[in-house]
Amino acid sequence: MALIVQKYGGTSVANPERIQNVARRIAAFRNDGHDVVVVVSAMSGETNRLIALAKALQNNPDPREMDVILSTGEQVTIGLLCMALKEIGVDAVSYTGGQVKILTDDSHMKARILSIDDAPMRADLKAGRVVVVAGFQGVDEKGNITTLGRGGSDTTGVALAAALKADECQIYTDVDGVYTTDPRVVPEARKLDTITFEEMLEMASLGSKVLQIRSVEFAGKYKVKLRVLSSFEEYGQGGEGTLITVEDNKNMEQAIISGIAFNRDEAKLTVLGVPDKPGIAYQILGPIAEANIDVDIIIQNVGRDGTTDFSFTVNRGDFEKAKGILEEVRKHIGAREVLGDNKTCKVSAVGVGMRSHPGVASQMFRALAEEGINLQMISTSEIKISVVIDEKYLELAVRVLHRTFGLDQAK
Amino acid sequence: MALIVQKYGGTSVANPERIQNVARRIAAFRNDGHDVVVVVSAMSGETNRLIALAKALQNNPDPREMDVILSTGEQVTIGLLCMALKEIGVDAVSYTGGQVKILTDDSHMKARILSIDDAPMRADLKAGRVVVVAGFQGVDEKGNITTLGRGGSDTTGVALAAALKADECQIYTDVDGVYTTDPRVVPEARKLDTITFEEMLEMASLGSKVLQIRSVEFAGKYKVKLRVLSSFEEYGQGGEGTLITVEDNKNMEQAIISGIAFNRDEAKLTVLGVPDKPGIAYQILGPIAEANIDVDIIIQNVGRDGTTDFSFTVNRGDFEKAKGILEEVRKHIGAREVLGDNKTCKVSAVGVGMRSHPGVASQMFRALAEEGINLQMISTSEIKISVVIDEKYLELAVRVLHRTFGLDQAK
Repeated sequence: MALIVQKYGGTSVANPERIQNVARRIAAFRNDGHDVVVVVSAMSGETNRLIALAKALQNNPDPREMDVILSTGEQVTIGLLCMALKEIGVDAVSYTGGQVKILTDDSHMKARILSIDDAPMRADLKAGRVVVVAGFQGVDEKGNITTLGRGGSDTTGVALAAALKADECQIYTDVDGVYTTDPRVVPEARKLDTITFEEMLEMASLGSKVLQIRSVEFAGKYKVKLRVLSSFEEYGQGGEGTLITVEDNKNMEQAIISGIAFNRDEAKLTVLGVPDKPGIAYQILGPIAEANIDVDIIIQNVGRDGTTDFSFTVNRGDFEKAKGILEEVRKHIGAREVLGDNKTCKVSAVGVGMRSHPGVASQMFRALAEEGINLQMISTSEIKISVVIDEKYLELAVRVLHRTFGLDQAK
Repeated sequence: MALIVQKYGGTSVANPERIQNVARRIAAFRNDGHDVVVVVSAMSGETNRLIALAKALQNNPDPREMDVILSTGEQVTIGLLCMALKEIGVDAVSYTGGQVKILTDDSHMKARILSIDDAPMRADLKAGRVVVVAGFQGVDEKGNITTLGRGGSDTTGVALAAALKADECQIYTDVDGVYTTDPRVVPEARKLDTITFEEMLEMASLGSKVLQIRSVEFAGKYKVKLRVLSSFEEYGQGGEGTLITVEDNKNMEQAIISGIAFNRDEAKLTVLGVPDKPGIAYQILGPIAEANIDVDIIIQNVGRDGTTDFSFTVNRGDFEKAKGILEEVRKHIGAREVLGDNKTCKVSAVGVGMRSHPGVASQMFRALAEEGINLQMISTSEIKISVVIDEKYLELAVRVLHRTFGLDQAK
């Protein structure tokens, strides 16, 4: 007898047959005596279809009207899922973001949730209904439709779980949990039973796109018990997915490193011979930010002879643009040269265990060195060590590190 | 400097190119100094796509959820049209039915409009914006999404024109006005400059599907000046369409008959030897109505020998179902026999002029008799004479009547 919020992504509701599968899973939870609130995304492909329509009319679509259009994707799914539920005898009612009153700020296409009115949902649950809510959308104070940005349905799920003080927020997706690394690269990759929020944040931001990063932050902040599961396994037969926990409740036997994440899409840029004086980092990165280019790793080493070298990575798609901007910046600040390399990738070892285990970094560097892999950049946080390397070594590096940290050993 | 409500149907907004055409037309009206409120339908094909999705999940889709799904069609169009307008420098803002607050009753899929909040629209118009409203939809007192039924966008247009006391409500469609009859049957058919609401009602209900009948009733009731135009003609080059007038302001020279309407989809059913006693019509038609079968013409002649014959027409698609029901009814009421014919059609002459001109009916019957066309049923109203005939004579009958009443003569 628990209150469970379930979120189903676009591939889980991609067509009527899959929606029927989702309905049967929900019915099984109801039969076990649970109250269920469901959040759904748009059917896969639908959001892209709508974006293409908008872009055919406006190169840079008006954000308010874009939200009016995009929000219809989820609205269709909530109606269809309620129909599928009713067809198998489960009473259900749908709510758009505006109807359940997910109040957001007015930042169209990237709105933040301010509050949720849980009263109508509680009344429906009490009356024995499954509540089906459109993910990804809300409404601002003036009644304008807003959306939370791509992947925002995860955030809706977590926000509803927080507002309803649900026992668990289950995120159904096309994978059955969070893995130690990508099984396509390392066949021995294992599913993790638990992972901490901090680790999940590092894994998510490093390219393990199981969960939207904002939803993980949100869940951590509001102490929502979050679980990632597969919607393609039969109810009762599938595993328990991966539980994302607030506390580091791993026992001592457990591995220091939880997973190896990687990102193929890194491109490296270096400005050589930068005058080593205050404000120089801003002078270099300011124009990059203004061009809406996201910067990932930033490295500036100690200066020498009054100059220093400044490096950072960007998404590979932004490489040429960023390089052009840096050429202008170079003239302006009197730097020597701009170097670029878009054949790089990033590999990271993530684990809260490294806090209490010194020597993880050197263990990692030795393993890579033994394979002859040169490290181009190094960046560390409290629970993560990332290296930028030549992209041709990506698979090799991931496999080596996976083995080095004992992630392929069954426990 | 007028306030004009324009309604564009599904074919007028079927793709981005056509939406751009609509935007240019609106811009031209703005440039001429008019305030414009626009009502749009779903892009053609979209409503059918959504219905198919729903029917894949529920044989008899839940009406509340059906409205949640169907209303997204128009919601996409309003966003797209606003984008197209902004792209050519026309400021615009979109409203869903719920946002503009088109309050309806709670009859899902066939809701009636109760009130419209015109304040936000007036504020936008004053600020120089074009207001784009989703047709076909509203919201009930509890905030549930409702729809007005197929063709409901016309009704939305007329209702907005009434609420805003607009100078004119223009219904843009794929024909350039109302014709004396279908030009595909009679190439000499002429576009009417004006037609009365009463005539339009008869024409619409008889198969000239230019305007949704409810919107015509609505316009007549609220004295909204209604005009049917083509959205496929260039602005300024097209004609004036057909103005639907409240008063019969035709001059004496004008034809008695305004148009020849027809309907191919009629099927005729007759119960022979019905005991001629009170309540028998209800006993026959009650079960038909319960089966949700619309009945068109009903004829019962005077009885003879204590029995009478009872005939009516239904849509051809309902023929077999209605016949089955009548067989049961026949046993129950002790009638002699049920006859059916689904190879019939209906042809009607419509015109307010016939009120003051006796002899129209006999003129019509003589013309048809001269062509050897047998009349199976006759039904008349104050401004209409309908005959049911063998479907093979349809084109011949329409052509003959069109000529008989001088409709092919230019004026």
